[in-house]
Amino acid sequence: MGVGGVSKRIILGRKLRSSQLGETLLPKRIALPVFASDALSSVAYAPDEVFIMLSVAGVSAYAFSWKIGIAVALVMATVVLSYRQNVHAYPSGGGDYEVATVNLGRRAGVTVASALLVDYVLTVAVSISSGVQNAAAALPFVDGHETEWACVLVALLAALNLRGVRESGAAFAIPTYGFMIAVLGMTAYAAMRAAEGNLPDVESADLKLLPASGYEGEISQIAMIFLLARAFSSGCAALTGVEAISNGVPAFQKPKSKNAATTLLLLGAIAITMLISIIVLARNMGLRYVDPHDLERLRQGDGSPLPDGFDQHTVIAQIAKAVFSDFSPGFYFVISMTGIILILAANTAFNGFPVLGSILARDGFAPRALGSRGDRLAYSNGILFLAAMAIVLIVAFQAQPTRLIQLYIVGVFVSFNLSQLGMIRHWTRHLKTEKNPAERRRMYRSRAINTFGLAMTAVVLVVVLLTKFLLGAWIAILAMIVFYVIMMRIRQHYDRVEAELVIGDADPIMPTRVHAIVLVSKLHKPTMRALAFAKATRPNLLEAVYVGFDQDETDKLLEDWDQRRMDVPLKVLYSPYREIIRPIVEYAIEIREANPRGVVAVYIPEYVVGRWWEQILHNQTALRLKGRLLFTPGVMVTSVPYQLRGSEVGKEREDRVLYRSRPGDIRRGGRDR
Amino acid sequence: MGVGGVSKRIILGRKLRSSQLGETLLPKRIALPVFASDALSSVAYAPDEVFIMLSVAGVSAYAFSWKIGIAVALVMATVVLSYRQNVHAYPSGGGDYEVATVNLGRRAGVTVASALLVDYVLTVAVSISSGVQNAAAALPFVDGHETEWACVLVALLAALNLRGVRESGAAFAIPTYGFMIAVLGMTAYAAMRAAEGNLPDVESADLKLLPASGYEGEISQIAMIFLLARAFSSGCAALTGVEAISNGVPAFQKPKSKNAATTLLLLGAIAITMLISIIVLARNMGLRYVDPHDLERLRQGDGSPLPDGFDQHTVIAQIAKAVFSDFSPGFYFVISMTGIILILAANTAFNGFPVLGSILARDGFAPRALGSRGDRLAYSNGILFLAAMAIVLIVAFQAQPTRLIQLYIVGVFVSFNLSQLGMIRHWTRHLKTEKNPAERRRMYRSRAINTFGLAMTAVVLVVVLLTKFLLGAWIAILAMIVFYVIMMRIRQHYDRVEAELVIGDADPIMPTRVHAIVLVSKLHKPTMRALAFAKATRPNLLEAVYVGFDQDETDKLLEDWDQRRMDVPLKVLYSPYREIIRPIVEYAIEIREANPRGVVAVYIPEYVVGRWWEQILHNQTALRLKGRLLFTPGVMVTSVPYQLRGSEVGKEREDRVLYRSRPGDIRRGGRDR
Repeated sequence: MGVGGVSKRIILGRKLRSSQLGETLLPKRIALPVFASDALSSVAYAPDEVFIMLSVAGVSAYAFSWKIGIAVALVMATVVLSYRQNVHAYPSGGGDYEVATVNLGRRAGVTVASALLVDYVLTVAVSISSGVQNAAAALPFVDGHETEWACVLVALLAALNLRGVRESGAAFAIPTYGFMIAVLGMTAYAAMRAAEGNLPDVESADLKLLPASGYEGEISQIAMIFLLARAFSSGCAALTGVEAISNGVPAFQKPKSKNAATTLLLLGAIAITMLISIIVLARNMGLRYVDPHDLERLRQGDGSPLPDGFDQHTVIAQIAKAVFSDFSPGFYFVISMTGIILILAANTAFNGFPVLGSILARDGFAPRALGSRGDRLAYSNGILFLAAMAIVLIVAFQAQPTRLIQLYIVGVFVSFNLSQLGMIRHWTRHLKTEKNPAERRRMYRSRAINTFGLAMTAVVLVVVLLTKFLLGAWIAILAMIVFYVIMMRIRQHYDRVEAELVIGDADPIMPTRVHAIVLVSKLHKPTMRALAFAKATRPNLLEAVYVGFDQDETDKLLEDWDQRRMDVPLKVLYSPYREIIRPIVEYAIEIREANPRGVVAVYIPEYVVGRWWEQILHNQTALRLKGRLLFTPGVMVTSVPYQLRGSEVGKEREDRVLYRSRPGDIRRGGRDR
Repeated sequence: MGVGGVSKRIILGRKLRSSQLGETLLPKRIALPVFASDALSSVAYAPDEVFIMLSVAGVSAYAFSWKIGIAVALVMATVVLSYRQNVHAYPSGGGDYEVATVNLGRRAGVTVASALLVDYVLTVAVSISSGVQNAAAALPFVDGHETEWACVLVALLAALNLRGVRESGAAFAIPTYGFMIAVLGMTAYAAMRAAEGNLPDVESADLKLLPASGYEGEISQIAMIFLLARAFSSGCAALTGVEAISNGVPAFQKPKSKNAATTLLLLGAIAITMLISIIVLARNMGLRYVDPHDLERLRQGDGSPLPDGFDQHTVIAQIAKAVFSDFSPGFYFVISMTGIILILAANTAFNGFPVLGSILARDGFAPRALGSRGDRLAYSNGILFLAAMAIVLIVAFQAQPTRLIQLYIVGVFVSFNLSQLGMIRHWTRHLKTEKNPAERRRMYRSRAINTFGLAMTAVVLVVVLLTKFLLGAWIAILAMIVFYVIMMRIRQHYDRVEAELVIGDADPIMPTRVHAIVLVSKLHKPTMRALAFAKATRPNLLEAVYVGFDQDETDKLLEDWDQRRMDVPLKVLYSPYREIIRPIVEYAIEIREANPRGVVAVYIPEYVVGRWWEQILHNQTALRLKGRLLFTPGVMVTSVPYQLRGSEVGKEREDRVLYRSRPGDIRRGGRDR
């Protein structure tokens, strides 16, 4: 649709029916990949973390791996069921932030928002780090330079999002379905080979795994429980991204809530299947896996240390290599799909960030400009901020998912908890007024599910805090506090301003007269236009004002002025120090002081040029002057533009920037150009 | 003098007599240090370069050192005499640029300006590099980290100049006179010790100096001449900065030209004395000095290689160490004065840059905003650019003055040449009209001096180009070409715009009606004020315009509007995609299309807040909107500011930024606050 058509539709002042926006809403088969990449991609690193934690107690502890997998799957199932309630109750797309704000108040809402902001940064850092670790298994030139590659990838993603990519369902669908096919296909192929009795071992199966120091002998029960708790909380990384669908309900086709709930269930089922598959495969194929900082705990079969330059490949890479030992394209397919979905997962943060930003802006917790389309500058700053923070984390933790994951899960579970707590309040409140017994039964059931969800996620949060606080979770909590304070201060500022701006009982004072001054730098078309426009407003007094540095130039202008028989008097302000702004500001103040009930209208002729470098060559002083005059009470500043030939180029650039597609468009639904 | 007083003086519209500006003009004793630091500081590196070049032919070639010193001194004397003519003929401070432009045309002027720009960058790079090389002799922690320290110093200088330092004569006088005392005092002390017969040798006197490969045996006459030419052209680095006074004539006390000419003579005499002193001392104290890249040509007395970590100290440092072998405070005084004057010399580039910028801006070769005070932004960019380029050079050439000097002298001599050529034309032109025989005699003599100057500097330029082109001078020439092209294109742009803006014969069309729209985001005081101001201008049609995203908010506003019995109609533009800018722009276009001879006046209420972070929270959309509306013909945009409590802070900050003292103030003269 051309600009003309759109313009007609918008400016005619009639309201667009929302059904008209339906055309780009997502069917379930597209919505699933759009919202699932983050949740599914965690299958690429969550199992690794479980095995790393268990390895502390030696290879015998690997017997617990599938039990921990089941525990994580249980939590995941609970969370999915809980969020199905959210999706029905809050179909507006506000997600956890809305649920917490509505039911628990502003502080809870902002806490959730802080947690989400921290999560976005960590999603980028963890996904990209895991992606390069996987890539290292297939691409020798990445091996050993993971940090650098991760930083380059983050920078690339940021650049892409700054540039503004047209989003399409296919861009999400192909890699996400590809990844599902890769993991589930690999599992099926492995099952087939196992049935034939020739499932090979992974490459690390021949290695010996020594327990960590302190865990060599008999392990006390408490130590073992603590270890299992840590493994479990690391495994819970698989839950990140499950809440994404609850932010995206408006993008679904009708019936929105129902479709979203179904998609959520589907997502949960697939994620659980993939997670358990990977864990079981790894366990049965003899995986030995340790913290990359603890590589010396891995030994060759004869007990001798590993060769120099040994690189431990990710769990998924080791499995794929072994399963497809007789079919290497399979290996490359799994690895490349894993890498791509991890990058896609990182990209969801770049998508989610502006969406959250606009919601926060609407509520006054973020700069208001984020709340409307059109301010790309604010968005760009957000994207740069996100990328910069992620790069800091990647460099600080050397692109090791194992380290980063310690920071990751706190934020997720803080918002899970507050969201479930909010939902319980929601149902309790509605139960107070609802009379219909069928409806009440449904509400009781929903509340029970959310209560169970809260209990489960609360336990996980406590476990996470206990096991990970000192390992890095404190950084995430600190960052959340910082975000919280900033958002609260922004809101305070807006509240204070709003209070100051409330209209009192007194009628506003009508200015009695307008004294207009037109700034003149030369006698040319822009000046003539500014004078004509100023005259058209019929001020009580109109004069042209020139700031003179130099007697000759001033004389010449005065002569020109006389010659052209200009009917507006020209006032000259001499400025021996070549200052422009100060004389004008002071003249405006003087006029205003002479007539405090009048208003001074300053008209500034402005050249409008096309190219950015031409822009630098003009209007810089006008810009500064306007900025300074705004501080002067009783003054209004009018720009009278004069469009030069070639300014069209600039208009087109401006429009391109203003109306470029924006990250996250697709998950918001309803954007038809 | 308070702001009030100044304001009275400026805005009353009467012209300030220039005598009133006299109060801060410089007496000769202050003008000398203000303008001399660059020229004098080259004594700290020019002798080193002479000895480095001569060392190629082995220590025997050092016999030529004082002859080369004399040759350089001769050129210096010629140049000083020539510039005394410039100072008398062009007392306005335009310097070489003005002389070339007036007498040889625009292209020559811009060539000189390009050369000066390149020179400013190189002055910073060379002076700072030489400064850290000297510092390395006294400060062990600098030794071996010269590049890093040089970069830090440049960054510090840039920061200081960005911040805006109040300049005072004392800040220039103390280090410059200190340096003169240091060098001349050292010479006197050395002479005393020599008279007593106990002038010690410098530290490198015991070393053996091997000739460079290819120069071991008998040297052909051509090779020797080439070598001497290279040594001479390196020594001519001592001439950089001599032209500074010709740019600063307006800052001198009356009689300006005479005082400037006298100061120039004084400067030349001091510089020559210092240069010759250093060369003679070095020669007599047995100096052995090679290119730092050729250190292996220095051997210990027994022919064995130098110990690891040997650092060759600068000539001035070696002399000072030996002369003051019995009085170490003397050594530290010389070294620290040398370091300080070199930093001061680098600072002159930061001072000269804005002065040149404003002259170029006046003539349309640089952004116009540079031509008036008040646009600090443009200056800041200039300072950052200068610092960045200098840092690039320092890093590329590892802070070695020997390498950098190859680029340096081309620019200086290009402007010397064009300036002298211009002066010859100047006298010839004046001789055509001048009748007074005494005056004519004076002119003939001046022309003869300038002709001799041109001959001399032309020879040097050719020698420099021949000996240094491949060693780095090509970089300087390339940079000059780039600057030249940029400046010419800027001027072309301004010329094109000016041609387009010339007022034709047709009278400008007076708009027949004004349709005013006031943008409303809420019903609060800023809106009320904007409505009141808009009403005061009595437009033909006035309406308030609101962009609605959301039915509830829109309804609430309409209700408020009715309740307050606003006498202005409110028009709602629905914008389902939360766009603000597009609906308004399109509405303005629609109004204009309906009435092409009318003008649309858009009134935007703006909040004026105090702190910078508050600024970010407001008006971002207004800013974008204004930017976009400027491209729409027939629209003028009025900002109606509403000053919030606390906006005073912002005004003060704005004034601080606008009226801060600016680098180069003192060399322009006449700035009384």
